[in-house]
Amino acid sequence: MTHRAVCLISGGLDSCVTAFLAKKEGYDELHAISFDYGQLHKQELSCAKKIARVVGAKNHVLFFVDLKRFGGSSLLDKTFAFPQDRKMSEIGKGKIPSTYVPARNTVFLSLALGYAEVLDADAIFLGAHAMDYSGYPDCRPEYLQAFQTMANLATRRGVEGRPILIKAPILNLTKAEIIKKGIELGVPFEYTWSCYQGKHKACGRCDSCLLRLKGFQEAGLEDPLSYEQYPNWYKKP
Amino acid sequence: MTHRAVCLISGGLDSCVTAFLAKKEGYDELHAISFDYGQLHKQELSCAKKIARVVGAKNHVLFFVDLKRFGGSSLLDKTFAFPQDRKMSEIGKGKIPSTYVPARNTVFLSLALGYAEVLDADAIFLGAHAMDYSGYPDCRPEYLQAFQTMANLATRRGVEGRPILIKAPILNLTKAEIIKKGIELGVPFEYTWSCYQGKHKACGRCDSCLLRLKGFQEAGLEDPLSYEQYPNWYKKP
Repeated sequence: MTHRAVCLISGGLDSCVTAFLAKKEGYDELHAISFDYGQLHKQELSCAKKIARVVGAKNHVLFFVDLKRFGGSSLLDKTFAFPQDRKMSEIGKGKIPSTYVPARNTVFLSLALGYAEVLDADAIFLGAHAMDYSGYPDCRPEYLQAFQTMANLATRRGVEGRPILIKAPILNLTKAEIIKKGIELGVPFEYTWSCYQGKHKACGRCDSCLLRLKGFQEAGLEDPLSYEQYPNWYKKP
Repeated sequence: MTHRAVCLISGGLDSCVTAFLAKKEGYDELHAISFDYGQLHKQELSCAKKIARVVGAKNHVLFFVDLKRFGGSSLLDKTFAFPQDRKMSEIGKGKIPSTYVPARNTVFLSLALGYAEVLDADAIFLGAHAMDYSGYPDCRPEYLQAFQTMANLATRRGVEGRPILIKAPILNLTKAEIIKKGIELGVPFEYTWSCYQGKHKACGRCDSCLLRLKGFQEAGLEDPLSYEQYPNWYKKP
């Protein structure tokens, strides 16, 4: 019997490791979906394309959903400032940062839910994690649990008692653990892009670069990506 | 203080009455949103435009989200048959009909949630109702409650203890009661379109026409729309 799953692939490190985990869990027909949501740079989308190919996805849907039309985030609107050079102890604590995109995961998961139901897929995999993260509300375990409950009531499959599972296998791993897991699985980290800026090299200053570099440092591994600069605490392993 | 709300307006009778109720409830700044989701006809969208204007919405967003790409519904795919001439006792009972669009309300509400958060709106109004309805899972009270719980966890406003309310004021009304309520509020029913087909006249055969005609008949009122034919039980009031 075919075990079908929809994988949300952003082009970042987390969703890439997650897609490889989906395969390892025995899902033998992966349907990748990535979103062009009006993000200021598209680097991550070309990474997503490579990742979908390498993980052996049966197909890859690049879905357009214009969240830029609403705005409200520094990832969508150049006039918003986004945090740079923060202390690691500040990231994920206190105020939700300007990089938060209102309802982004909810929109992405909802679209993936519709797609999964049409495909008759058993699961949706996403790379949310709540350990070394930016403090977005829609990455927390309690959020994902509530989405699952809602999805079961929303869908024909839910009514039939065959709910589509929302799976976030790296939810409770640290960034270092995610990277080590990726190495075990042969994840090509050179095909992933985490930086919030779309320059030739990663900036090494945004929250996403800082979390990634800290993860590689703690894992004792070198990040294959090039950075424009490194935070002062970073030492190449 | 401005009371801001996002109103989902499909162009149908239910969402139209709902928008008028939002205004009556004291929401003085309405932001209408309608979805071009790849439905086979666009008649309802031109109706939505008129309704947004008549209800006095501050603006009207026509948002494109291509659910047709996934398919899986007779409202999206011409190769699916859709039910016609059913007995009223069959509608909303038993199997979910082919007009169900997987995760449609979840996708629409998620997008409205993102929009509402950016606008700092206090509520989202939708015209879901669970009495004289087609048996879609994502119109049931328990579904909407679960969406509210999820939305509170998903958003910055939820985290701040100022949740965006999901409001479905006609949820427990019959079609006849919705129509009577609309008459009280001065709803221009001639600007609404319920038929699943996009012909010049409403077909009078699809579930949506049948529910509408039954509602008008029970309300003792005449539907201002023209129909290609009427079901045999229908008597003009």
